[in-house]
Amino acid sequence: MVKVNGNYLKLKAGYLFPEIGRRVKAFSAANPEAALIRLGIGDVTEPLPLACREAMKTAIDAMGTAEGFHGYGPEQGYAWLREAIAQQDFQSRGCEINADEIFVSDGSKCDSSNILDILGEGNRVAVTDPVYPVYVDSNVMAGRTGDAGAEGRYAGLTYLPISADNNFAAEIPSEPVDLIYLCFPNNPTGAVATRAQLKAWVDYARSHNALILFDAAYEAFIQDPELPHSIFEIEGARECAIEFRSFSKNAGFTGTRCAFTVVPKGLKGTAANGELVELWGLWNRRQSTKFNGVSYIIQRGAEAVYSTAGQAEVKTLVSFYMENASIIRQELTSLGLQIYGGEHAPYVWIKTPNGMDSWGFFDHLLNKANVVGTPGSGFGAAGEGYFRLSAFNSRKNVNEAMARIKSL
Amino acid sequence: MVKVNGNYLKLKAGYLFPEIGRRVKAFSAANPEAALIRLGIGDVTEPLPLACREAMKTAIDAMGTAEGFHGYGPEQGYAWLREAIAQQDFQSRGCEINADEIFVSDGSKCDSSNILDILGEGNRVAVTDPVYPVYVDSNVMAGRTGDAGAEGRYAGLTYLPISADNNFAAEIPSEPVDLIYLCFPNNPTGAVATRAQLKAWVDYARSHNALILFDAAYEAFIQDPELPHSIFEIEGARECAIEFRSFSKNAGFTGTRCAFTVVPKGLKGTAANGELVELWGLWNRRQSTKFNGVSYIIQRGAEAVYSTAGQAEVKTLVSFYMENASIIRQELTSLGLQIYGGEHAPYVWIKTPNGMDSWGFFDHLLNKANVVGTPGSGFGAAGEGYFRLSAFNSRKNVNEAMARIKSL
Repeated sequence: MVKVNGNYLKLKAGYLFPEIGRRVKAFSAANPEAALIRLGIGDVTEPLPLACREAMKTAIDAMGTAEGFHGYGPEQGYAWLREAIAQQDFQSRGCEINADEIFVSDGSKCDSSNILDILGEGNRVAVTDPVYPVYVDSNVMAGRTGDAGAEGRYAGLTYLPISADNNFAAEIPSEPVDLIYLCFPNNPTGAVATRAQLKAWVDYARSHNALILFDAAYEAFIQDPELPHSIFEIEGARECAIEFRSFSKNAGFTGTRCAFTVVPKGLKGTAANGELVELWGLWNRRQSTKFNGVSYIIQRGAEAVYSTAGQAEVKTLVSFYMENASIIRQELTSLGLQIYGGEHAPYVWIKTPNGMDSWGFFDHLLNKANVVGTPGSGFGAAGEGYFRLSAFNSRKNVNEAMARIKSL
Repeated sequence: MVKVNGNYLKLKAGYLFPEIGRRVKAFSAANPEAALIRLGIGDVTEPLPLACREAMKTAIDAMGTAEGFHGYGPEQGYAWLREAIAQQDFQSRGCEINADEIFVSDGSKCDSSNILDILGEGNRVAVTDPVYPVYVDSNVMAGRTGDAGAEGRYAGLTYLPISADNNFAAEIPSEPVDLIYLCFPNNPTGAVATRAQLKAWVDYARSHNALILFDAAYEAFIQDPELPHSIFEIEGARECAIEFRSFSKNAGFTGTRCAFTVVPKGLKGTAANGELVELWGLWNRRQSTKFNGVSYIIQRGAEAVYSTAGQAEVKTLVSFYMENASIIRQELTSLGLQIYGGEHAPYVWIKTPNGMDSWGFFDHLLNKANVVGTPGSGFGAAGEGYFRLSAFNSRKNVNEAMARIKSL
């Protein structure tokens, strides 16, 4: 009889966002007149940049001609997009990253979970707590953990708590780990890492031959020019890090779908027989065999992000959402709430008031203010007592949400 | 130190198509004046249907407005696309497949390899020989095989030879297997399965509690109305089969990227503890966690395939490529070559002449006729002595390729 992957049965409850969806759906069914404002899932709301739309329409016109038709493209992405990325996102910031180290994909969620395909069993994996749930769940599904305990923590993972107590900066682990997930600007806490903090991680990884999986999906929201946007701004990172980037949040591509992963050549891991193996070759093989590249049309849209017009539009979008974040910070602070993040990230991380737990605060805001946020405990046990609001919405909705919360 | 997935090291040489790419590149570098005609990789060449282009442009315009903007969509695909697929591809042919059993994706290559995520270790896997290399390579990469032997066959896999000797119909395996990859119309041989042949597979799978992974990417090319397009046209298939479909070949989406997988509810496998587990729930969880859905723009393009105008355009495209196949069949037959396939499939499968081996015939056609095909041995040991030509090209190129081959 066909055998299934029983590791899936270890997964606790639903993935966070479907669970929120279920609660919201039940509320809406019971209260069909309620005008919900969604500041929960980190999904953008503003129109796609004109530069991207025009580029995609031009690509579609080309696809209507024999000469301009594009069939299968390179699984790694078109050279013109990889070159624009390498030049503008990395080389212009002093990072030695070449175009052939860029792998274009349809999403960072896919890449950050598929990366486990090329990694072996027996790696000791560290994640922060709270953390983006995909890092944990994809490890569970791949059989890289044991069962979940009472708090929802999986045996075999090393959890690095982040909270107001340590200023949302995870301590370098005391036990040796092989694989470290880092996300800066951080989802969900909105915290950001200094150059010195990243250097400490790179130094740790190099001394332990560990691999850092660095999620920089929110780098565009960094306001302070001194803060690093990429792990590759840190010396030595090429020897110990892979970076995930996305067009979802800077250019509003959550529904358009394009992202990329940076795998430096020369970065190595060990096979069970002790052989040193380059990760670039493994990922290239993984993508060539199990992926067929991103739509030509969409890649042309992503390329336009790097045009002068596209860059100006991205800047406007980022400023707009960061103004939302600023409004949320100010309004909630004026209510006496303790607020974190939202200065270099589109997420505001709130200490729930009066000892309310995270889901309690979720239900409270949903029922009383018809505002949907994300319970901190959904991101991990140490997120209990916190709550995430996203700055991704229209100004009108953000203002209205704040007015409703203030009137509670 | 970080450990890599050493199973990748078992992979023999390059994936077939990159290897062809390397040889063609070397030839072109040495012969820059040669005008190559590519009948190798199964990539379409004709313009994208107008109905799809118009639908995508309308979607892009919507993405430029606050009201029509689409962010994250359902990971499984939009309901309007899933409903059109379920109705027109399945229910209209008498298959009991519902919209929520359709999972929209960015490619069948992705789905047919990612499906292993939800299947366990210890499954006995059967593939035909020759076979689409992704089925084999994805099993190797997932550690579901041993090492490759001298003929390139991996230990632990059950190979079912298909050749002129058995009329390209694999025999039902004599040993029990748990997982069976079937592809009809077949890539690479162009063979097609009758209803009776598929029924024999379904009966076998049901009696052994095995799972059939049925790849129907080429179903649109079936010309005989008596032949089944879907495994779900066979009674009992809902209890033992998953089907992969694609817009790549019927609507020319190889560079546009959209496909779907059908996972019937009620289809089950066993966990290591003996528990029966529904595959639908596992695949739904896999896609929700590791995938973020297909671009809204692209899904609107795929939906237009089901419009009256889109269906007419697809019919024209399929007829065009099948006329190419017919020309290839006639011309090569007139040269005395033994030809198979190409009647219900866009692939013509040629017995190499004069005892030439597959790569020898590849190099011969490349060097002497500047025509690129695909060596049969690249699809498996039993493909040795065969060669695949694809009907995907312009009429002018097909005629020119035939003229060149005739002049050899």
